[in-house]
Amino acid sequence: MTPPETITSLQNARIKAIRALAERGERAAAGRFVAEGVANFDSARRAGWTPVSVVHQADGLDPSEAELLTWASSAGADLLPATPAVLVKLTGRTNPPRLLGVFPRRSEPLPAKAEVRPDALWLALEGVRDPGNLGTIVRTADAFGVAGVILVGACVDPTAPVAVQAAMGSLFQVRLTVATDAGFADWLTAWQGAVVGTHLAAAHDIRQLKPSGPVLLLMGSEGAGLSQQLMARCTILTRIPQRAEVDSLNLAIATGIALYALRAARL
Amino acid sequence: MTPPETITSLQNARIKAIRALAERGERAAAGRFVAEGVANFDSARRAGWTPVSVVHQADGLDPSEAELLTWASSAGADLLPATPAVLVKLTGRTNPPRLLGVFPRRSEPLPAKAEVRPDALWLALEGVRDPGNLGTIVRTADAFGVAGVILVGACVDPTAPVAVQAAMGSLFQVRLTVATDAGFADWLTAWQGAVVGTHLAAAHDIRQLKPSGPVLLLMGSEGAGLSQQLMARCTILTRIPQRAEVDSLNLAIATGIALYALRAARL
Repeated sequence: MTPPETITSLQNARIKAIRALAERGERAAAGRFVAEGVANFDSARRAGWTPVSVVHQADGLDPSEAELLTWASSAGADLLPATPAVLVKLTGRTNPPRLLGVFPRRSEPLPAKAEVRPDALWLALEGVRDPGNLGTIVRTADAFGVAGVILVGACVDPTAPVAVQAAMGSLFQVRLTVATDAGFADWLTAWQGAVVGTHLAAAHDIRQLKPSGPVLLLMGSEGAGLSQQLMARCTILTRIPQRAEVDSLNLAIATGIALYALRAARL
Repeated sequence: MTPPETITSLQNARIKAIRALAERGERAAAGRFVAEGVANFDSARRAGWTPVSVVHQADGLDPSEAELLTWASSAGADLLPATPAVLVKLTGRTNPPRLLGVFPRRSEPLPAKAEVRPDALWLALEGVRDPGNLGTIVRTADAFGVAGVILVGACVDPTAPVAVQAAMGSLFQVRLTVATDAGFADWLTAWQGAVVGTHLAAAHDIRQLKPSGPVLLLMGSEGAGLSQQLMARCTILTRIPQRAEVDSLNLAIATGIALYALRAARL
């Protein structure tokens, strides 16, 4: 086959469409998002995701990049060779990655009863707003072997560029569900296991917590914390010990410590 | 006295000088940095810091803001009333805080032997690069009652705007030292206590660690981790349990979990 022509202009219709995926509305309408660089491609391949299309530097790829390109192409991705200048503009970086993939967005359904293993830790986030926090939490959930992450209510989009970057490839590894407040509340009635929430005034120190069976950790938003509705659904309210004078930890830090405290004993 | 005239233009020389503090070189030259909003002013006051000058909305302050302004003025700060439009431009926010303080930069010396209490936890960060990570770590160190944070070598500036924002007021609470690689290495020879480093291949699980006496936790940079030089200075290498397939946690998350693991028992 003849190699496709190298794209030299941001006015190229396909490049414009990819650039538009920086906006949440465009990602939702297209059902697509962008992930950059070798680590994301590696992670996507291991997890069985394939890109729809790949923008790549036309020349000068290193062997591992070239091999990922061959994989993507054989998996059905359209290859879009481009000049370095196009990659600079597309990524907004002076030193851009040489591979950029457009991937399909996915949201798994809320897990059925049979999918919840007795030793599993699940994580639900209510109304998380900061894409960097969300990406960091997904990365941490992956590190601690969380069974799945459930985004409840008005959360930031996990495929926002900052979230994808902070997740460092873990977005492809972690089972992710986007749920409405009502859908989650309804699903929760059938949950058979502990529901753990954190609260500064709680009596249980998280270090003393040894729940048996599946655990669902609920974390609230950066500003308001857990809603009263979800707080009322917790079977265990627990606290992370800290100096009394300080309001709270950053959401990603608090989530990381809670996951560590609940999960490390099983790793 | 006659109230000072409301500043309406970004061309005002004092406003231009404050705006320039967004740049690291300007902060270093002036020995000043900017912190915004009521939470920072509250924290600064509690910790005994006073602003050099305060830019504030000329009208419409709420009572707590007005009270902080009175405090700042009586502590010797210059008050610079400005229009909302000037505050928007100065902060780069569409919804800016109504108070913005210029504070003196401080770096404490490396702690003398007598300053290190037997139950203290100290934290040293080598070459941390991301201002959001650094600010989040300072906030977490404050929450866990860390005695002081030492920035070793080529670190990001803790008074960079993103770091100040992520620290959420804790920058005023935490004893902060900026040290050179050589100065820190030299100081470390007199340290009488455990020196704890984290490493994925280490034998000690951090949950089993119960060091007595003062503890110095060493954390490396986001990319490279601890240098060989500092790794060699650790008396205990420990690991945070996680899934083998995952490279590592985000630096702020790993630091948060290590501080929690080392400190929570004493809180």
